[in-house]
Amino acid sequence: MSNYIFGVDLGGTTTKFGLFSMDLTLVDQWVIPTRTEKNGDDFLVDIVLELQMKLTERGIFHEQIKGVGIGVPGAVLNAAFVKPCVNLNGWGGFDVAAELQKRCNWPCWIVNDANAAALGELRVGSERPIRNGVFVTLGTGVGGGIMVDGKLLSGEHGAGGEIGHIKVTDDMSRRCGCGACGCLEQYASATGILTSAQQTLAKQPSGSLMTERFPLTCKDIFDCAQKGDLLAEHLVDVAERMLGKALAAVSCVCDPEVFILGGGVSNAGQFLLNRVQKYFRQYAFPAARDTPFALAQLGSDAGIYGAAYFCQYNLK
Amino acid sequence: MSNYIFGVDLGGTTTKFGLFSMDLTLVDQWVIPTRTEKNGDDFLVDIVLELQMKLTERGIFHEQIKGVGIGVPGAVLNAAFVKPCVNLNGWGGFDVAAELQKRCNWPCWIVNDANAAALGELRVGSERPIRNGVFVTLGTGVGGGIMVDGKLLSGEHGAGGEIGHIKVTDDMSRRCGCGACGCLEQYASATGILTSAQQTLAKQPSGSLMTERFPLTCKDIFDCAQKGDLLAEHLVDVAERMLGKALAAVSCVCDPEVFILGGGVSNAGQFLLNRVQKYFRQYAFPAARDTPFALAQLGSDAGIYGAAYFCQYNLK
Repeated sequence: MSNYIFGVDLGGTTTKFGLFSMDLTLVDQWVIPTRTEKNGDDFLVDIVLELQMKLTERGIFHEQIKGVGIGVPGAVLNAAFVKPCVNLNGWGGFDVAAELQKRCNWPCWIVNDANAAALGELRVGSERPIRNGVFVTLGTGVGGGIMVDGKLLSGEHGAGGEIGHIKVTDDMSRRCGCGACGCLEQYASATGILTSAQQTLAKQPSGSLMTERFPLTCKDIFDCAQKGDLLAEHLVDVAERMLGKALAAVSCVCDPEVFILGGGVSNAGQFLLNRVQKYFRQYAFPAARDTPFALAQLGSDAGIYGAAYFCQYNLK
Repeated sequence: MSNYIFGVDLGGTTTKFGLFSMDLTLVDQWVIPTRTEKNGDDFLVDIVLELQMKLTERGIFHEQIKGVGIGVPGAVLNAAFVKPCVNLNGWGGFDVAAELQKRCNWPCWIVNDANAAALGELRVGSERPIRNGVFVTLGTGVGGGIMVDGKLLSGEHGAGGEIGHIKVTDDMSRRCGCGACGCLEQYASATGILTSAQQTLAKQPSGSLMTERFPLTCKDIFDCAQKGDLLAEHLVDVAERMLGKALAAVSCVCDPEVFILGGGVSNAGQFLLNRVQKYFRQYAFPAARDTPFALAQLGSDAGIYGAAYFCQYNLK
């Protein structure tokens, strides 16, 4: 009789589920909408219900499940206590692991969602498990997860790996969700690149392929850049210079063996990698200049893989 | 019969020695000039000679010495192999631990000197041993040592904790020893602040107390700033803004429980701390904004304490 682990990724829009064998092979996966009404009172109810329905559906006994790992979009203390999550309307402020365990009677561990994605990509998705690595997710925001000696660097206040909030410019015009200006996230995320494009096009509207795309997306900007549109290329260049510079600073702190880029923006693939790496090399400390860059492999499944890995790790 | 550890700090000008009890109480300390002629062929000869003379002097038997820790001004791999050291005319490129052990027949461990100072300040000099901390030394250069989970973060290429090479400005006028421009070290070290002062005074010579000091030192600049000299205050402010910003970036990576500032510039004490911390708070991620700052306690002895600690740690 096989044993299993559940990996769950609680997001602001959807909650993703994965059923994993003990060696982290994905056996089954599914998605439900996250019911954000009622201040999140339904989150844990829904999660427990889904897990139990999956057991019934597949004829798995309760004791075959060895644990549950859950990624949440907020700061987590001691793999249990979740601070109020901005992206979940302030849900949190309590020991989610204890509450969930009370409801489902399986050992539960909670992990920040960016860290879960990092665990997924660095420990499961990469060719070989990485001990010292940096995962950067370039999506609506810029998130990250840093692994040192095989462990997540979560930091003293849960701010470890908050790469998106490294200051990369003295420009004061874009205020970040964190309250500050100049954060990498405001310039190198999909949203940031789009904002830069909209601002530039408003001033200089003609002569760019981008004006033919409506509504303009970050993907369009990369497409136009790859087709040789000079303005789009410039925009991509500015964003990737900032990212390369920020990652060079990261490297002066933890000097990882590899940087892995994920999130929607990373769909631009080698075109993105080449640029980021060019600027990284320019700004990095010589000894770390040749640190390799790679693309994430698990896509939007990174979170459930990482949550399952986190559970497996804590079970040991 | 008591046991002991030797802690040695091999520098470009002097080599410092400490004899420590097993609980890292300093029993004896002394200094010799570093003989840099003959490409450093004398370094290990001199060190072994000094250690053996100390044994004779104090009537200590060979077997009472449990090990030797040595700090060197360069990158160190596996606590043994030292890459060629710029500040020692290229000395290195071999397994220093093995070579030394062959000569003295005690277990030897080698550690980067900035990391040794960090170990000294974070593990021995602070009120209680710190598990997650950042030590910054502000002297001729800007060095650092980062501790995560009670271990030094040395990184994949020995570039972990190279805080002085975080890029803090797009100004291209000062080239760093590492080959790049914009490095923190060029602006926040004693040398950097002095360069800024000289450049400013050359343009705007009158009306500052600094013009009365000759030759001007970094200490003079801080003295003048504390006496209310506006130009000196401005110079200090610019340097500490850059330092605060770089440490905020460090905090977005490893989020330490404390920052400890050492090196000659840190003699400015609370006057320095207040400014760095003000800018740190401005640039830091909110969760980490209140990270405390403290002054180093061991001064120029930090290296021998740290080397001895490193030896003690590896003996366990």
